[in-house]
Amino acid sequence: MRIALDAMGGDFAPGPIVSGAVQAVADMPELVVFLVGQEARVQEELDALADSGVMVHRDRLTIVHAADVVGMEDKPVEALRSKRDNSISKCWGLLAAGQVEAVVSAGNTGAMVASGLFNAKMFIPGVRRPGIAAIFPSNAGPVVLVDVGANMAPKPEDLYQYGLMGSVYARKILGVTDPKIGLLNVGSEDDKGNDLVRATRELFLNGPHAGMFYGNVEGRDVYEGHARVIVCEGFTGNILLKGGEGAVEFLFSALKESMARLMVELPPESAAKVAQGLGELKRRYEYREFGGAPLLGIRGACIICHGSSDDRAIRNALRVAVNFGRSGLNDEILQILSHSAPRGENP
Amino acid sequence: MRIALDAMGGDFAPGPIVSGAVQAVADMPELVVFLVGQEARVQEELDALADSGVMVHRDRLTIVHAADVVGMEDKPVEALRSKRDNSISKCWGLLAAGQVEAVVSAGNTGAMVASGLFNAKMFIPGVRRPGIAAIFPSNAGPVVLVDVGANMAPKPEDLYQYGLMGSVYARKILGVTDPKIGLLNVGSEDDKGNDLVRATRELFLNGPHAGMFYGNVEGRDVYEGHARVIVCEGFTGNILLKGGEGAVEFLFSALKESMARLMVELPPESAAKVAQGLGELKRRYEYREFGGAPLLGIRGACIICHGSSDDRAIRNALRVAVNFGRSGLNDEILQILSHSAPRGENP
Repeated sequence: MRIALDAMGGDFAPGPIVSGAVQAVADMPELVVFLVGQEARVQEELDALADSGVMVHRDRLTIVHAADVVGMEDKPVEALRSKRDNSISKCWGLLAAGQVEAVVSAGNTGAMVASGLFNAKMFIPGVRRPGIAAIFPSNAGPVVLVDVGANMAPKPEDLYQYGLMGSVYARKILGVTDPKIGLLNVGSEDDKGNDLVRATRELFLNGPHAGMFYGNVEGRDVYEGHARVIVCEGFTGNILLKGGEGAVEFLFSALKESMARLMVELPPESAAKVAQGLGELKRRYEYREFGGAPLLGIRGACIICHGSSDDRAIRNALRVAVNFGRSGLNDEILQILSHSAPRGENP
Repeated sequence: MRIALDAMGGDFAPGPIVSGAVQAVADMPELVVFLVGQEARVQEELDALADSGVMVHRDRLTIVHAADVVGMEDKPVEALRSKRDNSISKCWGLLAAGQVEAVVSAGNTGAMVASGLFNAKMFIPGVRRPGIAAIFPSNAGPVVLVDVGANMAPKPEDLYQYGLMGSVYARKILGVTDPKIGLLNVGSEDDKGNDLVRATRELFLNGPHAGMFYGNVEGRDVYEGHARVIVCEGFTGNILLKGGEGAVEFLFSALKESMARLMVELPPESAAKVAQGLGELKRRYEYREFGGAPLLGIRGACIICHGSSDDRAIRNALRVAVNFGRSGLNDEILQILSHSAPRGENP
């Protein structure tokens, strides 16, 4: 498996990006990573790791030079136009040329998506427009939410395809036996919501996969897990995802504060146990563990990581990309879409 | 202060609704509550409370009979049409007739809003369309988010007014000195988002209150509190609100589970202290404490409570309605809107 990794993408790039790649290559003997970015800086990171005693498998780590860097705050389309030799476009170029099977980046999400969507030949045939899938925790296990930011003005047919693609992802990658598809809405009643969700609901109810449709799910139901796939427009999905992260972070900091006051009243041994329990819980809900969000509908695999990804997050994302490639997921997406193209004009 | 309370609205109505009213009337000597609903059932609840030794101030609790009940799952507009003598419409009727200064309901939110928006004479002059304000916790103190479900297809001019009305609410009710208005978006860059947010951004930047505009805020930034007022369309706001509740609930149940395992290893005294600390934290984030969400832009006050409201939540909501009425908030809304009507066609 060959993966192009955007070495310059991320709040702390290239340090943790290169380090994550080195770790992933050590973990997975079949993995080859193309480190795409400014050659001298990437080389420097590799040298520093080798100097500090880390085993660097240079035979499976190739630097591909890209002189330009798209900044995290750059306007995506503008940056892609003005910075022609940037690492994001070069990653996608390697995928288009068949030199790699996947692309991974913790860089500017907008630029990553825009660059990928620019060339419709990169879409799986039948896909109208790829969508970003994010994983949420729930009482029943992980839930896939599509889209969380690739498509700001989707049509009902896009959401319909997100449901089908998400269900394949839930089965093949998350191991969910019979994933139901929920429609994110403001209430459980049929006629709730806006025009987009009402039209999408009709597509699901009248399409060939109506049996997979769970119905409306509200914001709080996401965490119940009755529907293991949930579809929504990219704007709302992005707000729900980041809002959930913010709520959890806020609560953990309040918890930390409460517990700090409590700790001084506890015997040292008890305090240590409480601290350990909270630490374990926090780690369970940190984004790092999830290893990035796939852009579903792309030939090959595209994994988009959080801007603040550390080496552990990058290592996990590379593993997710490998699993994605191995799973045969795209063949199933091709198949399910070819048997169920919904009505409606093309994008 | 006279308030019409929908005695039949809520998952557990009329029991906790009537009980909350009895408590509020005992707390606030100037409060008169009209209990609107099925007379016999409401009377029964009052009798039961009196029998159990609770002080029931019948001189300030008036039952207004309404034969019909709008169910929590009823389709709002249909229910309002077919159930002519329902408690929600009757509450609004009392407000329109000037017999009360506020309406409070934990019933079907859609019906409550639809009934209120049906009669534009109930709007503060200049208000295009009222919006529901919800309170979020943040590092800087409470944050007002408008709208969380009254307006599924807002225009930029609606969001602009939500910002101004929310800022008056933040100042008068929450005591925020100089509340900045944030625009909920998927990124901090200028051109992020969809057509609605880009057009809304222009209104704020070019309007007479540009100094109050903070700029874009992302989902996770809500909990930072840099902007103490945040505007968004009702669909997304509702998803963010309920999604946040779901995330916090999910995390608390995971926390409870982790702590249960830990407790058995702690000495009894330490375990009791930990349990107490968690209980306090949980109470801080329960919706009950917030006492309902106001529908901003209505003459008088309209407070919408959570369907699962208990007596404590209803008591708090009645107190919020009283504060709302006392604050002179609507006069300021009238003033700020008359000096800043944005361009754009009427609704």
